[in-house]
Amino acid sequence: MQKFFNPASIIMIGAPRNTGPGTYNGIETMLRYGYGGRLYPVNPKADHICGLKAYPSVAAVPETADLALISVGRDHVIRALEHCIQAGIRHVIIISQGFSDADQHGRQLQEKIARLSRASGVRVVGPNTMGVLNNFRNLSTGFIDLVIPAKVPSVSLIAQTGLIQVASQNFAYRAWGKAIDIGNACDVDFVDLLEYFGNDPETSIIVLHMEGVLRGREFLDTASRITLKKPIIALKTGRSNAGATAALSHTGSLVGDDAVSDAAFRRAGIIRVRNNLDMAVAIRSLLRFGELSGPRLGVITATGAAGIMAMDAAEDFGLTIADLPSGLADKLKHGKPDWIHVGNPIDIWPLGMIGRTYGKIYQLALSALLKSDDVDAVLSIIPDFRSPLHPDTEVFDAVRDARKEAGNSKPLAMWVYMGNAATEEKFEEVDGVACFSSVDQAMEGLSYCRQHHQILRRTIPSQRHFPYDQRSLSALIKKGREEKALLGEDALRFIAAFGIPITRGVIAKTWEEIKKAVVSLDYPLVLKVTGRDFLHKSDWGGVTTNIEDISDLHQAYQSITKNIQLKHPQARIEGYQLQEQAIGKELLIGLKRDSHFGPVIACGLGGIYTEVFKDISREIVPIGRREAEKMLTSLRIYPLLKGIRGEMGVDWESLLETLERLSFLATEISDLAELDVNPLLVDASGCKAVDARIIW
Amino acid sequence: MQKFFNPASIIMIGAPRNTGPGTYNGIETMLRYGYGGRLYPVNPKADHICGLKAYPSVAAVPETADLALISVGRDHVIRALEHCIQAGIRHVIIISQGFSDADQHGRQLQEKIARLSRASGVRVVGPNTMGVLNNFRNLSTGFIDLVIPAKVPSVSLIAQTGLIQVASQNFAYRAWGKAIDIGNACDVDFVDLLEYFGNDPETSIIVLHMEGVLRGREFLDTASRITLKKPIIALKTGRSNAGATAALSHTGSLVGDDAVSDAAFRRAGIIRVRNNLDMAVAIRSLLRFGELSGPRLGVITATGAAGIMAMDAAEDFGLTIADLPSGLADKLKHGKPDWIHVGNPIDIWPLGMIGRTYGKIYQLALSALLKSDDVDAVLSIIPDFRSPLHPDTEVFDAVRDARKEAGNSKPLAMWVYMGNAATEEKFEEVDGVACFSSVDQAMEGLSYCRQHHQILRRTIPSQRHFPYDQRSLSALIKKGREEKALLGEDALRFIAAFGIPITRGVIAKTWEEIKKAVVSLDYPLVLKVTGRDFLHKSDWGGVTTNIEDISDLHQAYQSITKNIQLKHPQARIEGYQLQEQAIGKELLIGLKRDSHFGPVIACGLGGIYTEVFKDISREIVPIGRREAEKMLTSLRIYPLLKGIRGEMGVDWESLLETLERLSFLATEISDLAELDVNPLLVDASGCKAVDARIIW
Repeated sequence: MQKFFNPASIIMIGAPRNTGPGTYNGIETMLRYGYGGRLYPVNPKADHICGLKAYPSVAAVPETADLALISVGRDHVIRALEHCIQAGIRHVIIISQGFSDADQHGRQLQEKIARLSRASGVRVVGPNTMGVLNNFRNLSTGFIDLVIPAKVPSVSLIAQTGLIQVASQNFAYRAWGKAIDIGNACDVDFVDLLEYFGNDPETSIIVLHMEGVLRGREFLDTASRITLKKPIIALKTGRSNAGATAALSHTGSLVGDDAVSDAAFRRAGIIRVRNNLDMAVAIRSLLRFGELSGPRLGVITATGAAGIMAMDAAEDFGLTIADLPSGLADKLKHGKPDWIHVGNPIDIWPLGMIGRTYGKIYQLALSALLKSDDVDAVLSIIPDFRSPLHPDTEVFDAVRDARKEAGNSKPLAMWVYMGNAATEEKFEEVDGVACFSSVDQAMEGLSYCRQHHQILRRTIPSQRHFPYDQRSLSALIKKGREEKALLGEDALRFIAAFGIPITRGVIAKTWEEIKKAVVSLDYPLVLKVTGRDFLHKSDWGGVTTNIEDISDLHQAYQSITKNIQLKHPQARIEGYQLQEQAIGKELLIGLKRDSHFGPVIACGLGGIYTEVFKDISREIVPIGRREAEKMLTSLRIYPLLKGIRGEMGVDWESLLETLERLSFLATEISDLAELDVNPLLVDASGCKAVDARIIW
Repeated sequence: MQKFFNPASIIMIGAPRNTGPGTYNGIETMLRYGYGGRLYPVNPKADHICGLKAYPSVAAVPETADLALISVGRDHVIRALEHCIQAGIRHVIIISQGFSDADQHGRQLQEKIARLSRASGVRVVGPNTMGVLNNFRNLSTGFIDLVIPAKVPSVSLIAQTGLIQVASQNFAYRAWGKAIDIGNACDVDFVDLLEYFGNDPETSIIVLHMEGVLRGREFLDTASRITLKKPIIALKTGRSNAGATAALSHTGSLVGDDAVSDAAFRRAGIIRVRNNLDMAVAIRSLLRFGELSGPRLGVITATGAAGIMAMDAAEDFGLTIADLPSGLADKLKHGKPDWIHVGNPIDIWPLGMIGRTYGKIYQLALSALLKSDDVDAVLSIIPDFRSPLHPDTEVFDAVRDARKEAGNSKPLAMWVYMGNAATEEKFEEVDGVACFSSVDQAMEGLSYCRQHHQILRRTIPSQRHFPYDQRSLSALIKKGREEKALLGEDALRFIAAFGIPITRGVIAKTWEEIKKAVVSLDYPLVLKVTGRDFLHKSDWGGVTTNIEDISDLHQAYQSITKNIQLKHPQARIEGYQLQEQAIGKELLIGLKRDSHFGPVIACGLGGIYTEVFKDISREIVPIGRREAEKMLTSLRIYPLLKGIRGEMGVDWESLLETLERLSFLATEISDLAELDVNPLLVDASGCKAVDARIIW
């Protein structure tokens, strides 16, 4: 990857002859951007381009360049790539469009490019890309004339578009350090670049723009490793259904279910943002602050109103307002009228105005908050009047001196209203200061640093191994694979083989068989009709509960049979499922194989409210006990599971183990598409699967 | 009110002698801001202030000024106010702090000010205020030296702080037209000012900052009238519990429950925003666009990636992506390679780059979208490269010409990335164009205009009148008022008097009474213990359901009695409630008297999930059928009420009427504090209240 970002020499195949306005000449824009290496335009129709000698072919170029850019019509790209390979070039960026982003022919061309790349070992970025930006080396391979940034932060971008690389002022903090547009990603992809930036000393924060996922599991594994050292921020678009369709036609990549992306990012410790403004806030605060060790904020404002706004925003972003350090109120009020309130938020206006000691009071408050062990970060909401009449409200020096006094780099988030970019730059000269455009953005920024702190300290899931009887499963697996599905008793026996508790039951075809089977079961019982024609059994009068004895049972058998024959004469009764009746709260647990990230485990509220409240938590498999616990505690019904108002909670241990066993099942039987246990009934005595369905 | 904003003369009591940096001299700042009226500083220790003659007292001023500003220590304020009253001054702004914002003494002083104001008819703004800003007349009574805005939009602010008035660049669009800080609002409040700005030809949008509500019902009525003509935008802070506490100590105003504020604002047609950035977005889009007649967007982008972002954001903000106007794809693709996709969003980059006709293509696309009857607004996401190499991507002229071609003012929301303030100003010279900082903000802006459209067309609730027997209620009302509550059968009979269906039941004290009562009821029955000691009956083994006959009933009676005697010997059984057993979905309906807005009606999911999912909708009383319907359809459980998977829905008519009757009850019995019907069981045959509780 190094050569893509630091090439000593570049050849450009398809360099335009014309230069100047409207020509989008990559040679010209690279030169203007200050590229310091050797540059070889290849264009058989030109002698010189931008004062550089032009070559008729790749072969004619006098050295084997570190990097080749290809910008020719799509049908000429493969030939150009072949020329690069023949010339011994190892790194190629294909700028041209019209591949998997376009039509069937384009997809075929792209597959051929990928094959050439694999066969030759030549690494290819693109096609359909603006290429690479490296502000540490004044390299910009895109054909847009960009402004060279004054300061270069150690933030690197991997995107599936050129938009974000180009529009750094809208997405980044000041600028990107390095950026790459992977385009259609026929070869170089997120995993390669994460690996590179993960080890790159010039990169302290990695930012991703993803429309689709590529090599999902490797992506997760790589990202998981890196986020234990550096933050990764991701803007995953195509969240909406409509967006997902567009992603398909746009880069030819597949967009998965958004909830799965959330679970995957969480697993990998990736911080997700929703748009360009959030991205800029996240970068700024992570770069300026790093991690935030606790949620407790000290707040200094110049108006009570802003203090209230800060409290609202703190609650929104999971932060808290710290207790005022003891003794500080007295110090601040010293010599002031009695009626002045001092609390946190600290309103410094009346304190500072009476006696005209605004700057001093500000510094006193700030340094006390920064020093306090009960305060994890400070938020300051102050005006920059920029008037000759109000020099007394300037607090640059107070901020600098308070920071020195405190002797630490605790985050100081500021919203300097009425200020401008210069105000912010000046404050940000002080270590550990970041400026935001609103109270909410400041809180949002701090919340990312809080996330980062927790991500750095997270534990890696360790899935338990459970013994199971492979032989008893093999017939069920065979049947499942053949029929693409296992239902009812089959599915229950399948999960039971992995130690997941199920309600005891049998399948019987006749009343005689039912009578015989019932002796092995305990009342009360449930009788259900079975058969392919009965998807929603209860709608059809095909279920009877609360069967207390053999006469109840016979009555149930007769009424179910009659019901079905009367109401749905065309439906075929394949049999009757007789089950011990379980009681408890209705949960749902399940597995779904995601095409990118593999099996995903889910649990949540079952029964009639499943679809209505969608109270479901999801985790990427594998999970350990800790993740199982997190899945349950993050549910809204968690208080009901734990037991409220003195009511007994459910059997927690059995529920956790059931989730762990389901995760283990998913890793052992790797070709399942979907598995649903619904309902799983759970009470204080344990949990029991009542119905299940498995799709291969 | 007019005199507060357009005073021909102002006297300032407590004008400082000193001027210049750090003095916060209101005379100086008013003069610098260009106030053109007559100005009279009152200060017995000064001859001249800022070149103006200073007067020793109010009485010495040679005219009766239109407006007086009082800025003296809090203990001198009342005397100053009395002087103003004596001098015949009718409008006073009290800038001084230390009143209900401070302590008990301050509260007493403020009450005295209020009494003086009421008795004399002199209108008072404040205390604890920065006063008034009127940019149409260069009037700023605050003591901060502000920048005079170049353009003055017709947007007026009413705030409970000076922050927003001063920090217009952070909260407004360019500037405020007029602004007022009502401070502690001892006299002039939101209602007065809404009335004034509602009729003010210089105000087309009203913006509110509220920490607490004052005169809630009058506020709602006034706002409801105005929002049928002009949009009202509100930032209501103190959302969090912590924030609510701070509001209490900050302006002495009470902050109600945030959900009630939501319901109240909805009722009044007020558009609620969450922070300064949202406020600025709302103002900008409402000012530039007015209303948005439909949700269908045409999108023009220069990158596919931004198109996907637009789709995501549209879904987030309840807007949709329009179908591409027929024929437009062919027109745009004319002469371009076959593989170029044209859809909505329209990616104009490949279309514009091939053949170098970017501006033309942009104009073609934009005017077609603006003209189309299937497109309600256009979102354009384009770069402003600001490079001499890319003049071809400038689309100022294209925007202007397309607008002219289309001949309408359909909203055109733009995100011009890489641009700056000048870019935005230039685009906004075109009618009906507004620029935003992100795709999300553009969508957010359009969504406010969509809200405004719907608010303008909303209907005013008309509550039905239901006949009821006042005499049969009077005993219950008497008991309720005396005991501060009605429970069980009493509460049920109370609501039954208003025609709300209840399950039939009786209260009995002994087994003999139970036996006698049962003949009037139909099995199955429920037996419950009653008494003050039993708040959560079912936790105590005090409820038996499914009683099918007299022997079941006797068994239930014995087991409940034994249960209670055994487990809670100290609890007193006051009686037994015998009810017909109802079935159906468990809902909850109720009333709560809000201290600001009066009775609020609520309905939602009852039973064990009530607290977990909080699926409750609220409306301010009165409601009519339409609002009742909205309350039910906005619930997440609405699909279950309507019936899914062929299951029968509940009796819709009976449920709607029950809500209407409850609203009517609330207006008739005006001294209820709370009323809960929980559960209300509802199925296809109707709904029935099973338990109720009323608090006076």
